[in-house]
Amino acid sequence: MLHDETLQRWLNRYLSVRACTESICAPLSEEDCMIQACEDVSPAKWHLAHTSWFFERFLLRDLDLISAPFHPRFDFIFNSYYKGVGSIQPRPQRGLLARPRLEEVMVYRRHVDEHIINLLNTSSDTIRREQWTRALNILEIGIQHEQQHQELLLTDMKYNAYAQPLQIAPYPTASIPCLESRDLNWIELPTGLHHIGHQAEGFAFDNASPHHIVYIGPVVLASRPTTNGEYMEFMEEGGYQRSELWLSEGWNQIKTHGLECPFYWQKTTDGSWQQFTLHGWQALDPLETLCHLSYYEADAFARARGARLPSEQEWEVWAHSQDWKPRGFDLGNVQPRRAQGIFGAVWEWTMSSYSPYPGYQPWRGTVGEYNGKFMVNQYVLRGGSCATPPDHIRPSYRNFFPPHARWQFSGLRLAKDLL
Amino acid sequence: MLHDETLQRWLNRYLSVRACTESICAPLSEEDCMIQACEDVSPAKWHLAHTSWFFERFLLRDLDLISAPFHPRFDFIFNSYYKGVGSIQPRPQRGLLARPRLEEVMVYRRHVDEHIINLLNTSSDTIRREQWTRALNILEIGIQHEQQHQELLLTDMKYNAYAQPLQIAPYPTASIPCLESRDLNWIELPTGLHHIGHQAEGFAFDNASPHHIVYIGPVVLASRPTTNGEYMEFMEEGGYQRSELWLSEGWNQIKTHGLECPFYWQKTTDGSWQQFTLHGWQALDPLETLCHLSYYEADAFARARGARLPSEQEWEVWAHSQDWKPRGFDLGNVQPRRAQGIFGAVWEWTMSSYSPYPGYQPWRGTVGEYNGKFMVNQYVLRGGSCATPPDHIRPSYRNFFPPHARWQFSGLRLAKDLL
Amino acid sequence: MLHDETLQRWLNRYLSVRACTESICAPLSEEDCMIQACEDVSPAKWHLAHTSWFFERFLLRDLDLISAPFHPRFDFIFNSYYKGVGSIQPRPQRGLLARPRLEEVMVYRRHVDEHIINLLNTSSDTIRREQWTRALNILEIGIQHEQQHQELLLTDMKYNAYAQPLQIAPYPTASIPCLESRDLNWIELPTGLHHIGHQAEGFAFDNASPHHIVYIGPVVLASRPTTNGEYMEFMEEGGYQRSELWLSEGWNQIKTHGLECPFYWQKTTDGSWQQFTLHGWQALDPLETLCHLSYYEADAFARARGARLPSEQEWEVWAHSQDWKPRGFDLGNVQPRRAQGIFGAVWEWTMSSYSPYPGYQPWRGTVGEYNGKFMVNQYVLRGGSCATPPDHIRPSYRNFFPPHARWQFSGLRLAKDLL
Amino acid sequence: MLHDETLQRWLNRYLSVRACTESICAPLSEEDCMIQACEDVSPAKWHLAHTSWFFERFLLRDLDLISAPFHPRFDFIFNSYYKGVGSIQPRPQRGLLARPRLEEVMVYRRHVDEHIINLLNTSSDTIRREQWTRALNILEIGIQHEQQHQELLLTDMKYNAYAQPLQIAPYPTASIPCLESRDLNWIELPTGLHHIGHQAEGFAFDNASPHHIVYIGPVVLASRPTTNGEYMEFMEEGGYQRSELWLSEGWNQIKTHGLECPFYWQKTTDGSWQQFTLHGWQALDPLETLCHLSYYEADAFARARGARLPSEQEWEVWAHSQDWKPRGFDLGNVQPRRAQGIFGAVWEWTMSSYSPYPGYQPWRGTVGEYNGKFMVNQYVLRGGSCATPPDHIRPSYRNFFPPHARWQFSGLRLAKDLL
Repeated sequence: MLHDETLQRWLNRYLSVRACTESICAPLSEEDCMIQACEDVSPAKWHLAHTSWFFERFLLRDLDLISAPFHPRFDFIFNSYYKGVGSIQPRPQRGLLARPRLEEVMVYRRHVDEHIINLLNTSSDTIRREQWTRALNILEIGIQHEQQHQELLLTDMKYNAYAQPLQIAPYPTASIPCLESRDLNWIELPTGLHHIGHQAEGFAFDNASPHHIVYIGPVVLASRPTTNGEYMEFMEEGGYQRSELWLSEGWNQIKTHGLECPFYWQKTTDGSWQQFTLHGWQALDPLETLCHLSYYEADAFARARGARLPSEQEWEVWAHSQDWKPRGFDLGNVQPRRAQGIFGAVWEWTMSSYSPYPGYQPWRGTVGEYNGKFMVNQYVLRGGSCATPPDHIRPSYRNFFPPHARWQFSGLRLAKDLL
Repeated sequence: MLHDETLQRWLNRYLSVRACTESICAPLSEEDCMIQACEDVSPAKWHLAHTSWFFERFLLRDLDLISAPFHPRFDFIFNSYYKGVGSIQPRPQRGLLARPRLEEVMVYRRHVDEHIINLLNTSSDTIRREQWTRALNILEIGIQHEQQHQELLLTDMKYNAYAQPLQIAPYPTASIPCLESRDLNWIELPTGLHHIGHQAEGFAFDNASPHHIVYIGPVVLASRPTTNGEYMEFMEEGGYQRSELWLSEGWNQIKTHGLECPFYWQKTTDGSWQQFTLHGWQALDPLETLCHLSYYEADAFARARGARLPSEQEWEVWAHSQDWKPRGFDLGNVQPRRAQGIFGAVWEWTMSSYSPYPGYQPWRGTVGEYNGKFMVNQYVLRGGSCATPPDHIRPSYRNFFPPHARWQFSGLRLAKDLL
Repeated sequence: MLHDETLQRWLNRYLSVRACTESICAPLSEEDCMIQACEDVSPAKWHLAHTSWFFERFLLRDLDLISAPFHPRFDFIFNSYYKGVGSIQPRPQRGLLARPRLEEVMVYRRHVDEHIINLLNTSSDTIRREQWTRALNILEIGIQHEQQHQELLLTDMKYNAYAQPLQIAPYPTASIPCLESRDLNWIELPTGLHHIGHQAEGFAFDNASPHHIVYIGPVVLASRPTTNGEYMEFMEEGGYQRSELWLSEGWNQIKTHGLECPFYWQKTTDGSWQQFTLHGWQALDPLETLCHLSYYEADAFARARGARLPSEQEWEVWAHSQDWKPRGFDLGNVQPRRAQGIFGAVWEWTMSSYSPYPGYQPWRGTVGEYNGKFMVNQYVLRGGSCATPPDHIRPSYRNFFPPHARWQFSGLRLAKDLL
Repeated sequence: MLHDETLQRWLNRYLSVRACTESICAPLSEEDCMIQACEDVSPAKWHLAHTSWFFERFLLRDLDLISAPFHPRFDFIFNSYYKGVGSIQPRPQRGLLARPRLEEVMVYRRHVDEHIINLLNTSSDTIRREQWTRALNILEIGIQHEQQHQELLLTDMKYNAYAQPLQIAPYPTASIPCLESRDLNWIELPTGLHHIGHQAEGFAFDNASPHHIVYIGPVVLASRPTTNGEYMEFMEEGGYQRSELWLSEGWNQIKTHGLECPFYWQKTTDGSWQQFTLHGWQALDPLETLCHLSYYEADAFARARGARLPSEQEWEVWAHSQDWKPRGFDLGNVQPRRAQGIFGAVWEWTMSSYSPYPGYQPWRGTVGEYNGKFMVNQYVLRGGSCATPPDHIRPSYRNFFPPHARWQFSGLRLAKDLL
């Protein structure tokens, strides 16, 4: 039997995550919420509805806690990619959703909330024990899922604001606390066998399991991520013109699209650099953590420095050896600031392609279409960023994006083989 | 010197056209106004702003009646294609314009209106005579231009509503007055020389001039446009499967896209046909005027009937011989209803490619980038439709679209050579 | 009854056209004959086979003069676009035809020739009169068809040679006879009614009929086509940078592809211009007839000169008024040389879109899929070029290409309205 | 000092590899050698020239053994992707190379051979010791490189023959020796640390180094690759219709292209399956080794069987444990025949993305643009196929292709975690 107190803790957590999502969107108008400036990003309205649909579809309806869908077409328009539950609105058409209106989506959120509140206020013995286990399992996944979408909301809002001619940033100008900068040191990992992957306590996505052993050879990792200033040197040395530094696909990308700097950067008429942020255009701070790179740019920079990207296993072993505490997002300043020696300012590209751990099993049922089916042609990023919910920042967490992606808060940390 | 009374008539006309545009958009929310479901259509918000920009840019600013642009970026985002006045937001990105918000666009409309009102309330001798001539000339063009966008608003609203999964029509269900149907008769044109093009009185776009002579040979035209029922027979006879009926490009279009009926039609599960309208889905009335065809479909249907499309000159000679009165749009029922023997229910494809009349000169200045530069690979449509402002329906009016276009209110009238 | 003498004349003509086709290809190796450098052009081997297939399919097999196809797959691979006789190898894949080998295609040509020779050596009363009529009708079309492909062979050979890195021209360096240049005069057409189209004698394609009346207003035409030198002035005056001179689609073409001169032209390191020809690279002669323009370039040039392109009817009336004799191709120098006051150096773009004459009927049967189905989005060229068989040069002949086409021998002649 | 005997052995090996390449192309005509049916494949003529260019450019010219290039444009047209030595003919245009003719390419081969023969016949002390080291190093790479192109020649010849309407196979019908089929057993790997990568003796490409340690957990591998019959069961069970078996990108590929079986397979009218081979169409033998799968198909099949693909490290450990001998290609029957328990019938997809080994360094100089720059978005295949030169079949050899590739001789071997 579950204690009411336990359920009350679940409820508080659920409500707090839901409120957080809405606070992220608070500055957006109906029109701001509808824009989809490229296929990779989604409209804020869609995120608001999709996260609710996840609870409705996989918790309330799969467990028969409600009898009918809220709306007959929402399975079509607010499903992201779960083929197990029917046909899906093509992703590039999410920007066409004038209807339902934002206010209708908010009604939908309240509808879902009400049923979840009812469930968690239920005297815990009114439903069967196994059902509770399953319900709380899905509730946990839904909460984690909504937190992931909080980061996507921030990255997509940034992209959508930038893509418009008026480039009106969603948040007011940030006061940037001037963090102290840190020197770069090299930290050696202990050569030998290490444990990798999520262990026992706390929630983790299926892709972080099973826990297993790897061998790590002699290697050092940088004590902090690369900074804007370090990358500007690379640019000034002709990094974008030297084909020998680049993976073949990376060279194609930068030449096809004429890239010469990270995404969101631009040179002003006086020759200085600025970057677009969720708080508007800012002068570039050379000591700030570098951000918005593709895997190709991160890899080319490392090669130019006689280094390489760490593997995800090296990264994880390194992170476990640090005295870290989660930082995560703060709507007062959603920008990776000056380096802090640990992680959590930017997602750090690793050299590891995203693939299953030995013995990996996706979750059962349709929610298992979450991680496994994307395990090809993507690369793992570790750490978490200034747009990540604090409790999603941990050593074993595996984020992943295709190597050309640049709109995420993605940077890098150098590694070097000791030979 | 201009009489104040004359100016008052201009003012009333201006205000009435502006109000009409806004009444068309009245049922749309901010989100409805932002959607652009394909490159060919524009968001309603863009139409509302662009028509205002036309007055601001070519009347108020070209004549120095205001000192500064309303907004520094509006020249970029609300210019359609006038290269003479600077760089332009690419057309496919009009759907990205979350900003300016609809309410800001309405403020822009009021700003422009105020200045036009001031101008027309000015004691007419305060500005120079030639400036008046020029001002009223542009005012006229601006009013006509806004009326053209009224039709585009209706066609684009239809397309945008249809493209969404929820397919919510902007207007309430129409009560469809059951017009009497009419038999099809063949009307012979007098063989010989005829005058073509706009003559003296009233406004006309530059493409309808100069007035000139053509020779018309022995031909008959149908007394009314083709009906849904007649086209359904063509479909039932396998019209979409018989390559010999089709222009090569038309055959490619229908096979590439799997077309088997006019746009907005769909077969219900009981085998009957229905069509999407600005008032929602309706059962198809076989006696109603056929609509939403490409040139290719119109041409193939005519060939199947041993007939052809009329030339635009034949059509114009025929129209002058009729006792017609303009009909135009009625927001209570924006759908071509039963045939009325004359024109104005649908735009009628002609076999004539859109090209300059002998001696054609575009208007001087940037407003001349209106018609002439599109005179290639487009075909002329004549008549006007159920979505056309009544005073744009006249025998000499030349509308034009590329032959694959299907989202306009476009149908056809048969013609036959007498040999 | 047909006289043997008549048949012998047919035979001689047939054999002479077939031999001419092969002499055009004489300098090509098996590999040269196989190349297809873009979708618009075809490999020489394909032309050699397709022209033979035309006789086999529409003459020998339609009239049951042979019992079986030469090869079961040739209907698939050597049909161009006659949907009436089965499925067709997609045009862009013609360059994949390593098999049949060139020598097998030559065997095919001989096979077809043998049967045609047998037919024409047949005592003429052995087959029925009507069959003769039909046979000679198709024979005529087949001969004319093969002559059209002679010009296409030359244009495609030029394109294919140019597209290769080694750019080896098929023919040896030409000795260029220095024709006298001519001044440009303006020739006025008689205002009033004129007859247009093919009349009684001699062969003509179906698209030149029926003969009919048009009205022509006051206009003058240039006495000779535009020269290289005149076009170079246009280029030097910034013609390719002035958007107001261009049709909107033309402007898109030149900006998308970065065009700044006619096709096959290139600036040498010393700043002078040269052009690629079937005889290799040559210095550009300012007095030579201008060639390899799109419709858009021709139209923009005319606009820059305060002129326009003639309509095809004006062109035809003008041509009938001239004392012309056919010139056509000469493999010793396949290049439009200095202007000769009449036509036949380049195909001349007219402003007329390609559409049916009043009362037009395509030929019956599958050979009727020849002209009519292309009557949309193409423009008429008149005159004939330095690559045209001499007996295809005549006032009523209608050639047609889409307006962006530049690889044909296409130039222009100016016209002006008299107002 | 080098012994002449040593040089003579080098010479013999060089000449034998060169002769082997030419024997592969022996049945091809000039036209067969020119075809490029898709971007992924190259014309045989190009392979013949490119392999020669490799020796000319990186051996003869880099070491100043010849003074001038054989042809000024060959650096442009026969360079594959070495950006360090200048601009390169775009890959999709290799099929345009009518010139140089095949016979000229053969002259080029002889020219290169002559210089290599001269070099190796040189009394070995006439050039400096270090130069010899470098020369023989590049010679080795050039030989290995040409052998890799032997396999590509076979795969591309197969693709090019198949893509043509006549589908004429290059080699005569094979007599298929009926090898005994073998049962599938599961072989367990020893859990713990293993050495991976190329060790000391013999040539290896840079990507197989450095030699390093990995930890391998409890796993079993199949004793033989999957057979046609096993895959047909998967197809019959609806494998191509069950989205839950597929990676998301794989599902997109099969649905976009309508794939329902491996490449080169086709169902006959009587319902049986046949496959296209270099020897023509053959009935499918259920006991033969399965071939021409994408990574996605291999992965989906494994998932359907409750298994997975092995990692490349697992595969290598397994292979070292086997008693294998190289098999490789035999022009009498270039098709993976019945399973033989070891490897070398088909390239076997592994689950490992292609990435650098710890401490990996590409070769110095331009030849280093060989492997490293492709280390992203590709997957490793191990083993070697029926089209692989025998001495390229070894446990440490890393082949790699993008996961959608199907035209290689690619199959799979199952693995299972022991939990």
